[in-house]
Amino acid sequence: MRNIAMKVSYDGTAYHGFQTQPELVTVQDELEQAILFLTGEKVKLTSSGRTDAGVHAKGQVINLQTEARIPVDRWCHAMNSRLPDDIVVWHAEEVPAEFHARRSAKRKTYRYTIRCGRFMDPFKRRFEFHHPGKLDVESMRMGLLHLIGEHDFTSYCSTRTASVSHVRTIYDAYIECEPVDQELQSYAMHIFVTGNGFLYNMVRIIVGTLMEVGEGKRSSNAIGEILAARNRSKAGPTAMAHGLMLWEVFYDKEAKKY
Amino acid sequence: MRNIAMKVSYDGTAYHGFQTQPELVTVQDELEQAILFLTGEKVKLTSSGRTDAGVHAKGQVINLQTEARIPVDRWCHAMNSRLPDDIVVWHAEEVPAEFHARRSAKRKTYRYTIRCGRFMDPFKRRFEFHHPGKLDVESMRMGLLHLIGEHDFTSYCSTRTASVSHVRTIYDAYIECEPVDQELQSYAMHIFVTGNGFLYNMVRIIVGTLMEVGEGKRSSNAIGEILAARNRSKAGPTAMAHGLMLWEVFYDKEAKKY
Repeated sequence: MRNIAMKVSYDGTAYHGFQTQPELVTVQDELEQAILFLTGEKVKLTSSGRTDAGVHAKGQVINLQTEARIPVDRWCHAMNSRLPDDIVVWHAEEVPAEFHARRSAKRKTYRYTIRCGRFMDPFKRRFEFHHPGKLDVESMRMGLLHLIGEHDFTSYCSTRTASVSHVRTIYDAYIECEPVDQELQSYAMHIFVTGNGFLYNMVRIIVGTLMEVGEGKRSSNAIGEILAARNRSKAGPTAMAHGLMLWEVFYDKEAKKY
Repeated sequence: MRNIAMKVSYDGTAYHGFQTQPELVTVQDELEQAILFLTGEKVKLTSSGRTDAGVHAKGQVINLQTEARIPVDRWCHAMNSRLPDDIVVWHAEEVPAEFHARRSAKRKTYRYTIRCGRFMDPFKRRFEFHHPGKLDVESMRMGLLHLIGEHDFTSYCSTRTASVSHVRTIYDAYIECEPVDQELQSYAMHIFVTGNGFLYNMVRIIVGTLMEVGEGKRSSNAIGEILAARNRSKAGPTAMAHGLMLWEVFYDKEAKKY
């Protein structure tokens, strides 16, 4: 039995999230169908974690057990030739038997993109939330700093969560702004958050609250005060799914190259 | 009567081209419907020129005659609030009565994008033609030079054209390459062509032929030889529509600001 790991990018617009759900089209279904065509095996693949409906991924990681002898450098093209063109497998390798895409993951980075300014970019509209008004980026940057470290993130977690512990560690959280597009009178603001794990809707609630900081409705300190309150109702709204992208997943040195 | 000109970007994926056609959804229909909602007027708008099914535009220019007294700085938002999100109006101004988006146009630039290398980018797949093999960019650049100047472009024009004269002037034609995306092992190659006008499928046939130069199937000199032959069958295939974008339209100094 070989353990094959792959890195996958997908445009999540057309899918009801990553994870298989009865009666709905998901990214996992598409991947498992491609594997079935390829190997004849009905596998249940493992991912680094689900992504919600409408959320995208640049570097989702999956793994699966297979008897297939297809050389590892053929997997990508073999998979892509059977996948719809909104899903691309761009790396495959054989990994140790104990590698598990979710349990072995040490860190994950998410990116949330806001297009700030007058006009949205119709060529990026599937991946950018449009905020027509001004946002104070420096206040947002200051706000993000309150999240770094190990905290109870109950305030920034959907009440529909199934997680018992709400303690997570955020290693890094920062904002990169692209230059202003003069014609569209707007620019893309990318919010990157890296942590050892994320609760249900965590990044989207952080971003929804952060936008209120950027709008001047809350101070940057409010991000810390909300955190301390451990109460979802203190935070802002959940930002829309389509601005969110699972950016990268990091593994141990052993299972590295990831 | 006021003459209002607007600049429009659109993702052409969902449309049967720019120009109104019976029974089919087109960009022009969407724009005219938005204008009808806004002004109560059933206008027939003028564009700088049609774009084919699946072709995009960054800077399409349109104009229309209207009695509506909506201030010009409100047009963009008023239009966008009534348009689907794959069409964005990002500039509007009142222009002299004699301004005509097609007849007043002096130059147009088209951009054709090829993603060269192993994997396509799923987030840009609607706007990039994927060429998995290697392309010799320098040969393609040399090939393009043969097109600059005033020529009879019969060889690079669909036989279904309705144009009487096939003589056009190309002012500029060059290639810009983005840095390689290490993960996708591919890069975007943008082919820009500027001319005083373009025949039916002209840019797509140029690009289709140029790809054969890039693949080493033809020499860069072949681009000039094919031009001289004035025979469509000497040129290569018509490149796919989705890589093409009407980039910018240039007008006279009088009707300038365009």
